[in-house]
Amino acid sequence: MTMKLYCFGESGNAYKAALAMELAGLEWEPVYVDFFNGETRTEAFREISIQGEAPVLVDGDMTLSQSGVIQQYITDKTGKFAGAPEDKYEVLRWVLWDNHKMSSQVGMTRFLMNFLPEDKRPAPVIQFMQGRLQAAWTTLNAHLEGREWMVGTGITNADLSCCSYLFYPEPFGFDRADWPHIDTWLTRISEQPGWKHPYDLMPGNPSDRA
Amino acid sequence: MTMKLYCFGESGNAYKAALAMELAGLEWEPVYVDFFNGETRTEAFREISIQGEAPVLVDGDMTLSQSGVIQQYITDKTGKFAGAPEDKYEVLRWVLWDNHKMSSQVGMTRFLMNFLPEDKRPAPVIQFMQGRLQAAWTTLNAHLEGREWMVGTGITNADLSCCSYLFYPEPFGFDRADWPHIDTWLTRISEQPGWKHPYDLMPGNPSDRA
Repeated sequence: MTMKLYCFGESGNAYKAALAMELAGLEWEPVYVDFFNGETRTEAFREISIQGEAPVLVDGDMTLSQSGVIQQYITDKTGKFAGAPEDKYEVLRWVLWDNHKMSSQVGMTRFLMNFLPEDKRPAPVIQFMQGRLQAAWTTLNAHLEGREWMVGTGITNADLSCCSYLFYPEPFGFDRADWPHIDTWLTRISEQPGWKHPYDLMPGNPSDRA
Repeated sequence: MTMKLYCFGESGNAYKAALAMELAGLEWEPVYVDFFNGETRTEAFREISIQGEAPVLVDGDMTLSQSGVIQQYITDKTGKFAGAPEDKYEVLRWVLWDNHKMSSQVGMTRFLMNFLPEDKRPAPVIQFMQGRLQAAWTTLNAHLEGREWMVGTGITNADLSCCSYLFYPEPFGFDRADWPHIDTWLTRISEQPGWKHPYDLMPGNPSDRA
């Protein structure tokens, strides 16, 4: 049975899982979650994810949420994106760093700046988050100086986690031109065979609601 | 050689690592990091953690940062806190959920509400974060209804990650009395042999700076 990813195009967290499956060459299909109309809060969706999380991967009897968990499952299934055995902790470190210091803040800030009605956008919160995000991008850009990949000599879950939100076109305070090492690395990822932009890989994008 | 944890009492992330080592019965010693006077930004500290992160665990040749990585290392070393093999993804899910949806926001909010000078505390940001945190505690409290532990039948890294900030006394919008299932679970954790409060387990606490 084909694996199903409950996802929507705007979700950078869903993109981490979708991109991992796509680059690993797995058979999978997206199931559109109408997040912006409240689908994750419905009883039907709570049958799939009791916490109303997205993405959710369903593979036979296995139902998984949290993008980092789905990434680990794909690695266990395919042997891909783990890096060298001696780099295991370093890969996990960047996945956690991304969840802790970057994606959680980017996801929220991008939502506030783009997906709320203009008169509901909390300017002081957005401004505060910009400062935190500049610090995260400074860390990421410095780490990538002189490196092709986040960890070791090939693409790992560290890359797939950290890159995800940075491919989105909506404004959230990130401009690739300001961060040359991040920019080169994102280009390198996008040149991987099978790479697709989030809006080409998953259903749903802001123009659907325009 | 005794393992060294670079830490400070106020850090809930450091507490996750310290508590894991203490409950596992490992020999370790804390090395105080004077975070509030900028030690993590010094050249000397950057020799230990290039990104200026705390906690950092040094065990012989191994230097690890991100609390979730240190927790995994302790599990690999001792076999403790992993849960049953079939619960591997569920334990990781809660560690990631905590990093992504709870600790990152609690840590920041508690800092803004307690460790910044009173005239520098950004009220709109604090108010906004309270809403996010109420959602996290609602999720946690609902999950713990009818459960002794976050996952399976014993204490795991999911408990050690999710509990950490909730033992701190400073105000950050969390009152145990509002969340009965969280409250019972925190009591259960604190009754584990060897449990210590963060300010008893690690050097440094707010009264040092009063």
